[in-house]
Amino acid sequence: MIFYVARQHSNNNRYEQPLNTEKIIATHRTKIKTNAIRAVYDSKEILKIIDESFLCHLGFAVNNQPFVIPVCYGRKDDRIYFHGAKGSRMFNTLRSGAEICVTISIVDGIVLARSAFNHTINYRSVVIFGKAHELNSPADKADALKIITEHIIPGRWGDVRKPTEKELHATSLFSLNINEASAKIRSGHPIDDEDDLELDVWAGVLPLKIIDGKPIKDDSVKNKVHNNFQIPDYIKNYRKNGKSIPEKRRR
Amino acid sequence: MIFYVARQHSNNNRYEQPLNTEKIIATHRTKIKTNAIRAVYDSKEILKIIDESFLCHLGFAVNNQPFVIPVCYGRKDDRIYFHGAKGSRMFNTLRSGAEICVTISIVDGIVLARSAFNHTINYRSVVIFGKAHELNSPADKADALKIITEHIIPGRWGDVRKPTEKELHATSLFSLNINEASAKIRSGHPIDDEDDLELDVWAGVLPLKIIDGKPIKDDSVKNKVHNNFQIPDYIKNYRKNGKSIPEKRRR
Repeated sequence: MIFYVARQHSNNNRYEQPLNTEKIIATHRTKIKTNAIRAVYDSKEILKIIDESFLCHLGFAVNNQPFVIPVCYGRKDDRIYFHGAKGSRMFNTLRSGAEICVTISIVDGIVLARSAFNHTINYRSVVIFGKAHELNSPADKADALKIITEHIIPGRWGDVRKPTEKELHATSLFSLNINEASAKIRSGHPIDDEDDLELDVWAGVLPLKIIDGKPIKDDSVKNKVHNNFQIPDYIKNYRKNGKSIPEKRRR
Repeated sequence: MIFYVARQHSNNNRYEQPLNTEKIIATHRTKIKTNAIRAVYDSKEILKIIDESFLCHLGFAVNNQPFVIPVCYGRKDDRIYFHGAKGSRMFNTLRSGAEICVTISIVDGIVLARSAFNHTINYRSVVIFGKAHELNSPADKADALKIITEHIIPGRWGDVRKPTEKELHATSLFSLNINEASAKIRSGHPIDDEDDLELDVWAGVLPLKIIDGKPIKDDSVKNKVHNNFQIPDYIKNYRKNGKSIPEKRRR
């Protein structure tokens, strides 16, 4: 895998130690090839971001006109998988071998500086380039649907009615290799100009996170069996399954 | 403005009234031109989605190679505004008059059906097409920075040190007219096949939402003035300012 990570972190203790702004920019991926240890570290970081979200923005172009479509995905090993109805413009374009760009973004907070100019957000994002590969056999398609379902809500697949051949025929499934990817991460406090530090302005970070609410049972089926169903643990404990972000990692 | 909205909502009371699946698909925008009332309603709906988020995914293409970049934005009237460092590939491409696609997505929940195939998510998304317009005068650029800041955290602009001419010179600011936009909305419970309704599977919706955590003060400045700062109300009450989503609108 070929990765680069652009990272920016502001250290709290600006006056006790030098400003710890770690910033690695690689404009060409070969730069990272020369640093295998960094590359391994980066691939873990990239996969962690991919695993924390399940919505990507998939970009493709037709005659240089860009389209950006929100798409749910799942990851297994070095691939992400996504699906949708056959015959859409997006899937027809993917099928023709077009280059795509898949971007995943997680917002961690609003960074409130003393100057307007130095406001920013804390975020982690991944960009993957490549060509999507269509899955054709019913077995591969069923496997991919399982990967997507288990990525979005781990534990769910075992409970539900599995797809029929007719359903598999009606849906298109694609994979994208995560072999050319980059990440950008911004964390920590605002970086204000020296002259602004004594200004009479509250400065810091307002953390943002995604949480799950109370599960809402589908009450359309008026039978006692369903009304007595307990909420499965994998739904009740969703946040604990790693899809939303533990507080300690939100700085 | 020219809009279309593709809407899908499953009604709870599947057995008490016909399945209320409202689904409007307009593949060509002229379809909406013939229905002015719907168009007005849709534009409100689209602006509501734009105002609820502040992160878009901006797509552009260079020689048919797509790029999708996460970008913060603000909206005023019928335009969104965004900014960044001068000289990036993205801004050079925008400056050349390239067509762009800006997509904003809000995930409202995971829809858990009785069959794997009918799983989906509840979401609201907006896609805007057009060409970005660069702002050149310092006054226009300062106005746009104010729009972006106030969009992300209303009330903040009045507190902070305003941008200098040097800062304005160092940043590029663009606007995009919201005059060709579409929205897609999915809400409500899963739509299961009739045959699956009696299955022994918990079905319903797991709502997801973005919340703000406890503000973290930048403690890098060791002076009493700053340590005595109170958290401003617009930060403390961030969720009440409409940037995250009231519970009653989450179904």
